[in-house]
Amino acid sequence: MALQHNVGLSLIFRLEIENSSTTFGKLASIIGEAGGDIIAVDVISVSKETVIRDVNINVFDREHGQKIVAALDAAPGIKVINVSDRTFLMHIGGKVEVTPKVRVKNRDDLSRVYTPHVARVCQAIHEDPSKAFQLTIKRNTVAVVSDGTAVLGLGDIGPYAAMPVMEGKAMLFKQFAGVDAFPICLNTKDTDEIVNIVKAIAPAFGGINLEDISSPRCFEIEERLKEELDIPVFHDDQHGTAVVLLAGLINAAKVVGKRLEDLKVVVVGIGAAGVACTKMILAAGVNNIIGVDRIGILNRNEDYENNMWDWYAANTNPENLTGTLDDAIKSADVFVGLSGPGVLKVEHLKSMAKDPIVFAMANPNPEIDPELAEPYVRVMATGRSDYPNQINNVLCFPGIFKGALQCRARTINEEMKLAAARAIASVVTDDELSEHYIIPSVFNKKVAEVVSEAVMEAAYTSGVARRERRDIGSNNNF
Amino acid sequence: MALQHNVGLSLIFRLEIENSSTTFGKLASIIGEAGGDIIAVDVISVSKETVIRDVNINVFDREHGQKIVAALDAAPGIKVINVSDRTFLMHIGGKVEVTPKVRVKNRDDLSRVYTPHVARVCQAIHEDPSKAFQLTIKRNTVAVVSDGTAVLGLGDIGPYAAMPVMEGKAMLFKQFAGVDAFPICLNTKDTDEIVNIVKAIAPAFGGINLEDISSPRCFEIEERLKEELDIPVFHDDQHGTAVVLLAGLINAAKVVGKRLEDLKVVVVGIGAAGVACTKMILAAGVNNIIGVDRIGILNRNEDYENNMWDWYAANTNPENLTGTLDDAIKSADVFVGLSGPGVLKVEHLKSMAKDPIVFAMANPNPEIDPELAEPYVRVMATGRSDYPNQINNVLCFPGIFKGALQCRARTINEEMKLAAARAIASVVTDDELSEHYIIPSVFNKKVAEVVSEAVMEAAYTSGVARRERRDIGSNNNF
Repeated sequence: MALQHNVGLSLIFRLEIENSSTTFGKLASIIGEAGGDIIAVDVISVSKETVIRDVNINVFDREHGQKIVAALDAAPGIKVINVSDRTFLMHIGGKVEVTPKVRVKNRDDLSRVYTPHVARVCQAIHEDPSKAFQLTIKRNTVAVVSDGTAVLGLGDIGPYAAMPVMEGKAMLFKQFAGVDAFPICLNTKDTDEIVNIVKAIAPAFGGINLEDISSPRCFEIEERLKEELDIPVFHDDQHGTAVVLLAGLINAAKVVGKRLEDLKVVVVGIGAAGVACTKMILAAGVNNIIGVDRIGILNRNEDYENNMWDWYAANTNPENLTGTLDDAIKSADVFVGLSGPGVLKVEHLKSMAKDPIVFAMANPNPEIDPELAEPYVRVMATGRSDYPNQINNVLCFPGIFKGALQCRARTINEEMKLAAARAIASVVTDDELSEHYIIPSVFNKKVAEVVSEAVMEAAYTSGVARRERRDIGSNNNF
Repeated sequence: MALQHNVGLSLIFRLEIENSSTTFGKLASIIGEAGGDIIAVDVISVSKETVIRDVNINVFDREHGQKIVAALDAAPGIKVINVSDRTFLMHIGGKVEVTPKVRVKNRDDLSRVYTPHVARVCQAIHEDPSKAFQLTIKRNTVAVVSDGTAVLGLGDIGPYAAMPVMEGKAMLFKQFAGVDAFPICLNTKDTDEIVNIVKAIAPAFGGINLEDISSPRCFEIEERLKEELDIPVFHDDQHGTAVVLLAGLINAAKVVGKRLEDLKVVVVGIGAAGVACTKMILAAGVNNIIGVDRIGILNRNEDYENNMWDWYAANTNPENLTGTLDDAIKSADVFVGLSGPGVLKVEHLKSMAKDPIVFAMANPNPEIDPELAEPYVRVMATGRSDYPNQINNVLCFPGIFKGALQCRARTINEEMKLAAARAIASVVTDDELSEHYIIPSVFNKKVAEVVSEAVMEAAYTSGVARRERRDIGSNNNF
């Protein structure tokens, strides 16, 4: 059961109960017999004949909920009007709204934010388009763009079904970093069309967060947009994961007393995220990386159909190892998994170097059950919130965009990503650092702040910041 | 001066003043001598040597502001650090923000609005895409789409410079009707591209408000989008104006005791808005409409290059009049102007039927100076906020979209627009109705409410509402 992430379901049953034929006692016993756990009861309305109640019930899963509905419907004098669940209730009407920053109180206000005086602001931007960064939402707004082709573990569920994820992301952008983000889910999978659309809608935005776009289209889309737009374009599934992984790796290496330069790292699952993670840790100084996918170790003896794998073999695997994960993992210091459950065995762990570090990031079920792995690893991290050391993109994307927007960076480059990773790692102090605490909590408020500061510094140092440093915090608009 | 809409400029001067060489009295007299009017003073910071003050000064215009800057800079011991103006200050960083509807307080919340539980919501929409209207922002969100080609009186100023107008519109949508609206300014003028982009981004939205797109492209774009999308598409410059004009006309006819069916109406300026206004009042029962543009009265003896004019001549002008405005206006009951200043002369007014009604809606300067017209007209309306009877789209777009969204209308049809016009007109009661009060104020809170109710009713009656009537206000999501 350890791997079944089940917080249960909290359902709200709206029931119409005939006063003459049943009582609350009877109702409670029906629910209890069906295995439901009553949490709260509200009366919605009362008439002579009936009472309408909302009964909040914890159940195991949806099927269990359906059983309770059936049991209630079968009872005389009880009618189930509807059933809601807390997760669904939190989604009614969507999770974000667009709100004015100032209220239009009178005609004078109206004449400034709208016609006729808004024309002066339009004119100023027309004369100097860079003023869009100062006088429009471009200053602080990111588009969260998806085509819905690779959403969570659900695959190609399309743009409508992808919206709740993008809205969730928009919520987190605002809550964790004060960045405005708006979900744009595209009803097309055509690479050219996606590139053209994002370019066309870019005027309103200071940055583009690409999300849940399937590989290999995601590479080309990101690459072309980075080239053709002068605002940051960041595919979070690749780079967000890579930044947070590196943060964890920096601290894990500290825990075991090894240097990044000396590590042998095995990466399993060489898709979009696997490639990005590899590039990131290469940039951070790791030299010995072995990539493994279904066909085995990526090496220079092969000519792959997937161009990215050719690049991978050419730029990793210094000893040009061949074989399978069994071969790659021998004497490795670090395992990085972006594959699926069950890929990593206890035998593998036993063959690793002293103090094994395992990042088992497959979602929702990691490459090895953490409890199974525990006796054989020194540091274990997963993508899950119910184990220590969660590698969660939320640690990266709000702060990295905040920093990039504040200094009007034209891109998010390697230096900025490295700075973000180091900043995340730095939030865990040497005193706090341990096997079970290599990465801060997603709720740690310091994270977005230190990340944005470090990213901004890196943007200035690497020459991609467009805002005069002295202008940060000032408003000169005459 | 009557037509010069000048509320003046309120500028904020940030000044560094040397304590040793000047005093506030000196400062005040310099500003006064330069014609500036000090409104407010704040101390920002004080040191031994200097004090930094924000001085709020009313000036005539920007040039006058520059003169005051020069006068202050010339004075010993005073340095102008910067000058801001209240309109520009209200635009810093843009006018809308994207905010979460609920705060993510803990891991349980996070697991519901984001991974892993959001997946269940995605799955539900994937199984039944119509649930997007219930479980995403599509329920209440409108895209305000422009390509920046016909912005206010400024013309083709491009998508960056158009943003402040679209942001202003988004503010008004939310404040007046609780509708979420997001500005999308497109970096393309290509009709096909615009149509494709709007179709592609539509999944997030429950409606599309087209704005400030130049004619004749605006017709084709709206027409094609209406055909290809299953959500309302509404070009506000056309239909918003038409709805509010009709509202005013209904009440103006009441004031003079004439029936719509009996009116002779002359429309001058047969562009996008002129055509829409004509269609609207035709639909409301007006029979005798004469269209006039630069080439004179539109009639059936001519074959126009502009197809819309051929349509116009075929569907108006029952007596097939020819000639100029001088001919058309004779014995007309109503003048509707969507042209430019000076088009309507006192002589024209004198030749109209008894109790002339004039809608002089050219912006910012009407077809005739209202003060010049006053002795000769019974009812006068303009697009301006500084005269009675302002024909302002703000009376229409928030409420019409609110009604359409609430009932999930697949379109905004003629019935709904007529209902909106009648609802706006109805806000002015018979007791209140007079020459100077034919149309409610944009700040009248009743307007959006009655418009949305009437529009929803019309959507149900005309069969375009997709939400079960009984579901309005309920949340059934199992």
